[in-house]
Amino acid sequence: MRDEYRADLLQVNKLLVWMADAVRAAMSRATSGLLNADQTEAEEVIARDPEVKALYRLVEDKVYDLCARQAPVASDLRLLLTALHLAADIERMGALAVHVAKTTLRRHPARAIPEPLVATFEQMGATADRIAGKISTAISKLDVVAAGQLDRDDDAMDKLHTDLFGIMFAADWSEGTEAAVDGALLGRFYERYADHAVNAGHQVVFLVTGEALGSRDAAQ
Amino acid sequence: MRDEYRADLLQVNKLLVWMADAVRAAMSRATSGLLNADQTEAEEVIARDPEVKALYRLVEDKVYDLCARQAPVASDLRLLLTALHLAADIERMGALAVHVAKTTLRRHPARAIPEPLVATFEQMGATADRIAGKISTAISKLDVVAAGQLDRDDDAMDKLHTDLFGIMFAADWSEGTEAAVDGALLGRFYERYADHAVNAGHQVVFLVTGEALGSRDAAQ
Repeated sequence: MRDEYRADLLQVNKLLVWMADAVRAAMSRATSGLLNADQTEAEEVIARDPEVKALYRLVEDKVYDLCARQAPVASDLRLLLTALHLAADIERMGALAVHVAKTTLRRHPARAIPEPLVATFEQMGATADRIAGKISTAISKLDVVAAGQLDRDDDAMDKLHTDLFGIMFAADWSEGTEAAVDGALLGRFYERYADHAVNAGHQVVFLVTGEALGSRDAAQ
Repeated sequence: MRDEYRADLLQVNKLLVWMADAVRAAMSRATSGLLNADQTEAEEVIARDPEVKALYRLVEDKVYDLCARQAPVASDLRLLLTALHLAADIERMGALAVHVAKTTLRRHPARAIPEPLVATFEQMGATADRIAGKISTAISKLDVVAAGQLDRDDDAMDKLHTDLFGIMFAADWSEGTEAAVDGALLGRFYERYADHAVNAGHQVVFLVTGEALGSRDAAQ
């Protein structure tokens, strides 16, 4: 493999890790803003989102450029097109963090989630942070084991999502309609965040092994 | 352009139109199932979704194959990678129709939406159908005008989405928490369906003109 091409691929990898770290920070900040009704944190998430989009465009441009200049075949091509797919999944994770932040701002100065839901969202936030950290590691080390572990974290997020509805649909739910609707939408944002991370993990496995774990976008 | 290559590109286009028609039918059927609490229609949506996924894989395989065999440059490459992006957006539209259908099944034999929300979802269904029809046309005719009109339909969907919350958050909402949560999640499925259609429209414009309308995934 030519040195220049190898250097270009490393650059794509670095950009993807950068994106993964950015969306990890975004959702961590969004969760903190949500739990603490913190307007500044929520606004920070929104202000920094263009960075994620800019990184996405850089990955796109780099992949286009490499495809055009290097006329890659077989495994190189798979690598480049998978990098595009990965970037798209990570970009969506950033968008979901923005949705959480916007919900915080919509209800400010009140907290967007009532007391009965706080513990669940604390755990959702922690799970999201763990998942995003694993994506970062999986990409930078091309680590299929780390990527494979994500399915378990996704199961954990699904369980929290189910718990959420158990609380909101219980007979003793007294927080009202708006709070339940916010809770349901926020729950979906965290659930989709985990889904995209699992998809990203599948991309990493495909990138390394050529194996398309059944359906590459299994989580929906 | 070599005849064989041209034929291959036409095939990719046909596959994309096929996908667009399939997700239009899926959401139409899902809406009908939702409004009529029709279990059979909802199950049909779910049963037919693998067809959309199979078409997506065909597009992916075809694009990979063309990239590898033809070593395309410049505008050809843009076409192929945009086709991938389009296919991904259309696949998500199919997944959203499945979510609507699953909601119908979860509440069956009751209707998943209460009377006060029926009119709004009838209109959301009609808007979704109009939007999906335009995507089909835009792709098959490479029609940037049709693709450009989608932003207006997206605005219409956003307005209906806002109306929905107006009804559910009104002081006289008496349908309960679960119905409001279902309404909010269903509303989000239709809203995201329209978002993906708008993104697909932007892909068509980019494909034809090379112009990336500001941000190519503008709608979120």
